[in-house]
Amino acid sequence: MLPSELISWDNAVFRCYLGWSMILLFKMFALSILAGLMRFITSTFANPEDLMSPKLKVKFDDPNVERVRRAHRNDLENILPFFIIGLLYTLTNPSAFLAITLFRVVGIARIVHTLVYAVVVVPQPARALSWFAAYGATIYMAVQVVVTAAF
Amino acid sequence: MLPSELISWDNAVFRCYLGWSMILLFKMFALSILAGLMRFITSTFANPEDLMSPKLKVKFDDPNVERVRRAHRNDLENILPFFIIGLLYTLTNPSAFLAITLFRVVGIARIVHTLVYAVVVVPQPARALSWFAAYGATIYMAVQVVVTAAF
Amino acid sequence: MLPSELISWDNAVFRCYLGWSMILLFKMFALSILAGLMRFITSTFANPEDLMSPKLKVKFDDPNVERVRRAHRNDLENILPFFIIGLLYTLTNPSAFLAITLFRVVGIARIVHTLVYAVVVVPQPARALSWFAAYGATIYMAVQVVVTAAF
Repeated sequence: MLPSELISWDNAVFRCYLGWSMILLFKMFALSILAGLMRFITSTFANPEDLMSPKLKVKFDDPNVERVRRAHRNDLENILPFFIIGLLYTLTNPSAFLAITLFRVVGIARIVHTLVYAVVVVPQPARALSWFAAYGATIYMAVQVVVTAAF
Repeated sequence: MLPSELISWDNAVFRCYLGWSMILLFKMFALSILAGLMRFITSTFANPEDLMSPKLKVKFDDPNVERVRRAHRNDLENILPFFIIGLLYTLTNPSAFLAITLFRVVGIARIVHTLVYAVVVVPQPARALSWFAAYGATIYMAVQVVVTAAF
Repeated sequence: MLPSELISWDNAVFRCYLGWSMILLFKMFALSILAGLMRFITSTFANPEDLMSPKLKVKFDDPNVERVRRAHRNDLENILPFFIIGLLYTLTNPSAFLAITLFRVVGIARIVHTLVYAVVVVPQPARALSWFAAYGATIYMAVQVVVTAAF
């Protein structure tokens, strides 16, 4: 089967990849809004032109804003690679059951990661476990891509 | 029409996606150079091995350097997702007029965002509006991808 | 030749792109682990829920942790764009020799960049040169994509 034939609406793996990728995009983009809200609530603005009142000064160390920014950066480190690895993994024609399970693991794990990091702080190891689940699933997909490309 | 047939030089939407993606890549990469220039101009180096003179010390809080770095990070949060969402949206076979308009909105809005943030500081809401324009257009594309994948 | 025919296991350029992309993914993901290790070694935790002992306080300025984080952020700025530009460049049907050379330059340069930045600190211009090599090769590929899309 040609890889390009797998980029098809009839391919359940491709559709599942699209669905979870877009859910993770919405989740990641929601953190931009949450960071903005936190800046307004705590009056923490990083640029002079953003200050809403002449009494305010730029501020960089509000723990609530920084927490959301760390969660967002963690998304950049993990979700953005998944966008491309998930697509390339789809091209290797994986078993539908395995591929859909892996996409679900990444999707759910990254949503849980954001919830326990930036929305309601949950004691460790909640964040560590959710981070590892998505990390491991992404590495497994990347290994499959390398193996398919090499042999 | 098969999605893979849309990845074609005859498809104006695909070519428009390529053009604007590469313009945004050049724009984003230009911020790396601008950040480097700002570091030299203000003698703000983050690593001991970068110090040009034994009199200098590592410094992390120059407002000009940090401003360019914030603009660059905002690009990572918004342009990198567009690279993949724009490609997947192209695969949904959208109307050429709508798709080309959306790519132009993202491309122009992100260029304006960088100009008013990191080159010539313009009072708000210039940066907020340019940020929202690209954000909204990207979300619209992602919704179309989900809808096409789901039905 | 249709671009979608180039997404094929018979295309040496596509396989080379996949191989180096996944190597760079593993390299980038390794920095997450290295940053975590550095946090444990230096007891530098950014979140109250991560503190291993009630005597510890959150800390943001450990130079070893921050060095790894800067190397990681530099990867986000350079490797993530390569993931998509490398794929789009493959679609332009480049000469195999040139394309494979460019992928090797990006791959090796980014590995060297990480080694001299975050593993064993090597005096400049080691880091600057490795950064420029990958940066230049990526820009060359992007220019080829624009030229192919435009004409």
